[in-house]
Amino acid sequence: MSGTGFELLKTDGAARRGRVATAHGTFETPAFMPVGTAATVKAMTPEWVAETGAECILGNTYHLMLRPGSERIARLGGLHAFMKWSGPILTDSGGFQVMSLAGLRKLGEDGVRFRSHIDGSYHDLTPESSMKIQNDLDADITMAFDECTPFPCDKDTAAESMRLSMRWAKRSKDAFEERAGYGLFGIVQGSVHEDLRDESAKALTEIGFDGYAIGGLAVGEGQEEMLRVLDFTAPMLPTDRPRYLMGVGKPDDLVAAVARGVDMFDCVLPTRSGRTDQAFTRRGTVNMRNARHKEDTRPIDPDCACYACANYSRAYVHHLVMSKEILGMMLLTRHNLHYYQELMAGMRTAIEAGTFNDFQSAFIVQYAGGDIDAL
Amino acid sequence: MSGTGFELLKTDGAARRGRVATAHGTFETPAFMPVGTAATVKAMTPEWVAETGAECILGNTYHLMLRPGSERIARLGGLHAFMKWSGPILTDSGGFQVMSLAGLRKLGEDGVRFRSHIDGSYHDLTPESSMKIQNDLDADITMAFDECTPFPCDKDTAAESMRLSMRWAKRSKDAFEERAGYGLFGIVQGSVHEDLRDESAKALTEIGFDGYAIGGLAVGEGQEEMLRVLDFTAPMLPTDRPRYLMGVGKPDDLVAAVARGVDMFDCVLPTRSGRTDQAFTRRGTVNMRNARHKEDTRPIDPDCACYACANYSRAYVHHLVMSKEILGMMLLTRHNLHYYQELMAGMRTAIEAGTFNDFQSAFIVQYAGGDIDAL
Repeated sequence: MSGTGFELLKTDGAARRGRVATAHGTFETPAFMPVGTAATVKAMTPEWVAETGAECILGNTYHLMLRPGSERIARLGGLHAFMKWSGPILTDSGGFQVMSLAGLRKLGEDGVRFRSHIDGSYHDLTPESSMKIQNDLDADITMAFDECTPFPCDKDTAAESMRLSMRWAKRSKDAFEERAGYGLFGIVQGSVHEDLRDESAKALTEIGFDGYAIGGLAVGEGQEEMLRVLDFTAPMLPTDRPRYLMGVGKPDDLVAAVARGVDMFDCVLPTRSGRTDQAFTRRGTVNMRNARHKEDTRPIDPDCACYACANYSRAYVHHLVMSKEILGMMLLTRHNLHYYQELMAGMRTAIEAGTFNDFQSAFIVQYAGGDIDAL
Repeated sequence: MSGTGFELLKTDGAARRGRVATAHGTFETPAFMPVGTAATVKAMTPEWVAETGAECILGNTYHLMLRPGSERIARLGGLHAFMKWSGPILTDSGGFQVMSLAGLRKLGEDGVRFRSHIDGSYHDLTPESSMKIQNDLDADITMAFDECTPFPCDKDTAAESMRLSMRWAKRSKDAFEERAGYGLFGIVQGSVHEDLRDESAKALTEIGFDGYAIGGLAVGEGQEEMLRVLDFTAPMLPTDRPRYLMGVGKPDDLVAAVARGVDMFDCVLPTRSGRTDQAFTRRGTVNMRNARHKEDTRPIDPDCACYACANYSRAYVHHLVMSKEILGMMLLTRHNLHYYQELMAGMRTAIEAGTFNDFQSAFIVQYAGGDIDAL
């Protein structure tokens, strides 16, 4: 048996409740994967990450190949041992981040040549080298190497880019070393065009992957357009494989995407917001720099059971962020990740109970219309 | 019964093993107090601070009076509740830090007028206001307001400064609100001059304090000169009160000062070093940025039982500090504070056993002559 496993436990409308099995254990879906860019979920210990309820985390091939280097990580026993995360790890292919290096990279049929943002050295990323690097990292889930089509772009460019990604997907599959519990996910591209997404989904299912990601979204198209694309793209994907919406998103994005049949997510939002003084709560986002928190003895979110909310006042968190104290980033990151995981757990429970619709309605009223200060 | 208590449990040569009792519990001496400048020991949770073995921490009056403000902290239940540290807290008087604001402050008989480094607003610190602020903070141990004599300075200036501090010490005592378990410490000044230190010690014991600090050291005079001053100053102090060497120091400073009868210390070194990539080990300091750690699978210090050493390789810590990751600062701060507390615990055990001399000899050989890479 090679590959990762996927068990679809329950559906509720289009929403799916499942379980992914990997070489480093299982994780429940719908799942949100915290981003551990440089072999650390920023400002968190691995124990804290696990405590939030996260079961699978993401590592960035681009960052890790440059520093400390994927071969070094392999010699040190792989990413799990290096960063002391014993659960499943998904790595991206490096493609998305290399493409973001405007002016510093050169794209061809074979792959991408780019210059390191750290020391200016030249590096190549190809489907083959990306597979090798992700193998060195010991990723449980490897992502096929693709070009993330920019947004907006004309349809011809989108088609050309998607077809290159499909040729790279085939090369990724050929280069991927099959092992029990290790999976390879393909990435559907095609921008906002239904026929291109269809062509891409067909090409990928033809090749055959352990899971299917939806790429090229959350790149500036807006939530409405993203959901429109999801509406027609999700049904194109095999039901017996996990579906992963890359780089998404805000809490309301997650709920709307789960409603459309997505199983997996990753996003820097909860961690980055934790370092920029923003808290996610059941009643929307809160800027902890706001002076109204100065003497507020309540926790960030009265309904939250995280370490930060169990122990500290808004007044204290406000003081920490105003003083640019590291503990402020630690507490807010921990809170935000806890909130995200609670949200995912709530969705999983609702799907199991067949009440996802109610969950979604209640979420929208509370999250979009709520005011944490009214509590 | 007012004031803090002090029990001298054992002496071994000049070294002393004792216990200080405060309104928020006791702490064992010799003690090292981690610095929690802005109501947080930087990059640490309070639980982590306690886990290192620290029992008493320090807060900075200067920083806290400006942000979030001592009256605000009082309204929020005091510093213990605000920052969730339930053990003893010592606060400095604000004097030392105000004096460091060259050009931004004006000194007179009454006190100091200075401008905030945060918003440029004017503030006054006097013996009376310093007592009020430390009372608002709910400090278990309040420090008398003093002028920290600069180094070097001529003897006349040192004498004049010390005498001003002694007048302020009397005013501090008069303004201090006596409560059970809350103590006030006087601060011996007099620069490097034995006769001035003697005059200062006599003036303070005449007034009567719960403890006696030695101020005006660790300001650039060097270890040899500091120890020379300690040699004649420590014996001037009452044996039945704790002695506190302010702002000291490196591990070898601590051992040498305990050998001379000092009971309490504070210093930013372990925490600041933890944010600047330096590790303290039983075999000296280690720069974690050094390339030799790149693939070293050993912990920072093989003899250390701290969280960082129990879980992570030097290679990983090196990667974190090279990547400027917050987790690197968290791990190194945690390690450094653990090392400092282990050092203090080792000294306490040695004094109890009457083997402090042997402890000191072994420490010097290992710490000064050691090489962590040789392990």
